[in-house]
Amino acid sequence: MVTIRDVARLAGVSVATVSRVLNNPAIASKEAREQVLQAVATLGYRPNANAQALATQSSDTIGVVVMDVSDPFFGALVKAVDTVAQQHQKYVLIGNSYHIAEKERHAIEVLIRQRCNALIVHSKALGDDELSRFMDQVSGMVLINRVIPGYEHRCVWLDNVSGAEMATRLLLSQGHQRIGYIGSSHGIEDDLQRYQGYSQAMTQAHQTGDAPPAAWRAQSSPDLQGGEAAMVELLGRNLHLSAVFTYNDSMAAGAMAVLKENGINIPDDFSLIGFDDIPIARYTSPKMTTVRYPIVSMATLATELALKGAAEQLSAGVSHCFMPTLVRRHSVSPWQNVAPVTY
Amino acid sequence: MVTIRDVARLAGVSVATVSRVLNNPAIASKEAREQVLQAVATLGYRPNANAQALATQSSDTIGVVVMDVSDPFFGALVKAVDTVAQQHQKYVLIGNSYHIAEKERHAIEVLIRQRCNALIVHSKALGDDELSRFMDQVSGMVLINRVIPGYEHRCVWLDNVSGAEMATRLLLSQGHQRIGYIGSSHGIEDDLQRYQGYSQAMTQAHQTGDAPPAAWRAQSSPDLQGGEAAMVELLGRNLHLSAVFTYNDSMAAGAMAVLKENGINIPDDFSLIGFDDIPIARYTSPKMTTVRYPIVSMATLATELALKGAAEQLSAGVSHCFMPTLVRRHSVSPWQNVAPVTY
Repeated sequence: MVTIRDVARLAGVSVATVSRVLNNPAIASKEAREQVLQAVATLGYRPNANAQALATQSSDTIGVVVMDVSDPFFGALVKAVDTVAQQHQKYVLIGNSYHIAEKERHAIEVLIRQRCNALIVHSKALGDDELSRFMDQVSGMVLINRVIPGYEHRCVWLDNVSGAEMATRLLLSQGHQRIGYIGSSHGIEDDLQRYQGYSQAMTQAHQTGDAPPAAWRAQSSPDLQGGEAAMVELLGRNLHLSAVFTYNDSMAAGAMAVLKENGINIPDDFSLIGFDDIPIARYTSPKMTTVRYPIVSMATLATELALKGAAEQLSAGVSHCFMPTLVRRHSVSPWQNVAPVTY
Repeated sequence: MVTIRDVARLAGVSVATVSRVLNNPAIASKEAREQVLQAVATLGYRPNANAQALATQSSDTIGVVVMDVSDPFFGALVKAVDTVAQQHQKYVLIGNSYHIAEKERHAIEVLIRQRCNALIVHSKALGDDELSRFMDQVSGMVLINRVIPGYEHRCVWLDNVSGAEMATRLLLSQGHQRIGYIGSSHGIEDDLQRYQGYSQAMTQAHQTGDAPPAAWRAQSSPDLQGGEAAMVELLGRNLHLSAVFTYNDSMAAGAMAVLKENGINIPDDFSLIGFDDIPIARYTSPKMTTVRYPIVSMATLATELALKGAAEQLSAGVSHCFMPTLVRRHSVSPWQNVAPVTY
């Protein structure tokens, strides 16, 4: 790597002169300017971004912490952040945290040490106390998909309970009664909230107000393979379900694959509704009915808030709770209360 | 942001003393050490990563340039880099370049300015000359999915032509003759190479050695929507094709959706083979026959080479060309040369 010392040596001037020519050319002599610029061109020298970040105590990078960038939901989140970053001539530094407390903490620490003064953090494993301590230190840190009391103006989150209620009520309105829930095994609050919405809607609809049986819930990793495993589990329990609501679209797509392999027709024999509305939901067969998580709008807002926070321009007293919406495609159909299909 | 000056002020010592306590505690007095560590804890001070990077002319981040991190193929690439990075206690800085020369150049420049001394670059828009100049400056820069003559030991690439020949020959061996090609409109060499492999296999199999008609090739964006658009285009041309080979799996999944919507059964009425073997290929219905791009192995090797290069430990004289393999699932079936299906 070419350093400022190499430039000074080749130009036959001092390091201070090189610095002056590059940062404040007006006060350098014409001769020094020419020698230095010639040496810069010859050596391909680039001013060190770390030196600039050190001088200004900030950097031109925006930090993002997500569970796993190769998950399509988080890919969409990161892309939305990147789009806003580019509009502000900034670059994105990404940390994967895999919903593990130690990795979440480490990723945030590293981004702060890199002097990213705008940070968008998807954290599920750390406690409110620890996250609020981070937020007290970094004015440009914003949480996405989480809310901490007292920090509502720096949080962008979704009403997961209402989204899950909507999904479950859609199935109930079509005559389904034996509706399962396929959830995430990561033990994060989103799963608890979506299960809560499902359970509330089921309990309300039940003639004697009973909660759905625990056996109707299966959990696995929140991806295609996990959806496959959870659906196998539910089929194996022989519960005569006619529908499932799943934690996310990837799990729904995995469940669909298992149903088809078992000759169970969607939506005639079995209905299915996902959550998120990632692109895959439009390309399953049949196209997936799901709940839209407006992640692009939310990540865009979170990035704008983080940049404002970094500039100390955030005002308290506003909150940013988004509401999901139903996307009706073709994986749900009415259910006549006939003898259950044999499976 | 708390600085080293704030720590010095609170501890009642000089900045140099704080630096000594943090970087070389053995030579600091016990009293100074206690005062400084107390102040560090009180203020929540974090040593500046930029200062460390400036001192050592390197950083603890590995840079990656990809087309678009929200594309599943590039998500898998970045995740593989991240896995190796974590093993070396390093963090990943990602730049999206969207196959645009200016953005590719800018992303590489920014990562170099951040003193990422290990860089994994997926560049398709920049010329060999410009990339080799970058590589001459940064010993830890490695190209993935591209080879530049003279830099083979710092490139990790795939034999695209052979992969496309394999895919096309599989369709030919099943009796298909009217085989289309759905390609990328990004104009990158991968698409040209895959078209070349397709065209070679078709020409060899043709009784009089003719190349396939230009009309059998349709191009669009290399994603689900693009595959949908290209398949609509081919169906509209009324070419009586019985199969297509697609540039990637996302396009194949988009094409499958269009075929199904038009009542064309896969694989009985129409066969289809993709490229890449991203997870979605195992969850289409039927499961997709495709060509496996060993991106995880390749990105892992590229990251290891980049780290070795940064440590000046790369030896020339080796090259890293990977070979794709066929993954036979259920989207290809034999074709009897009967009257073409009506569509």
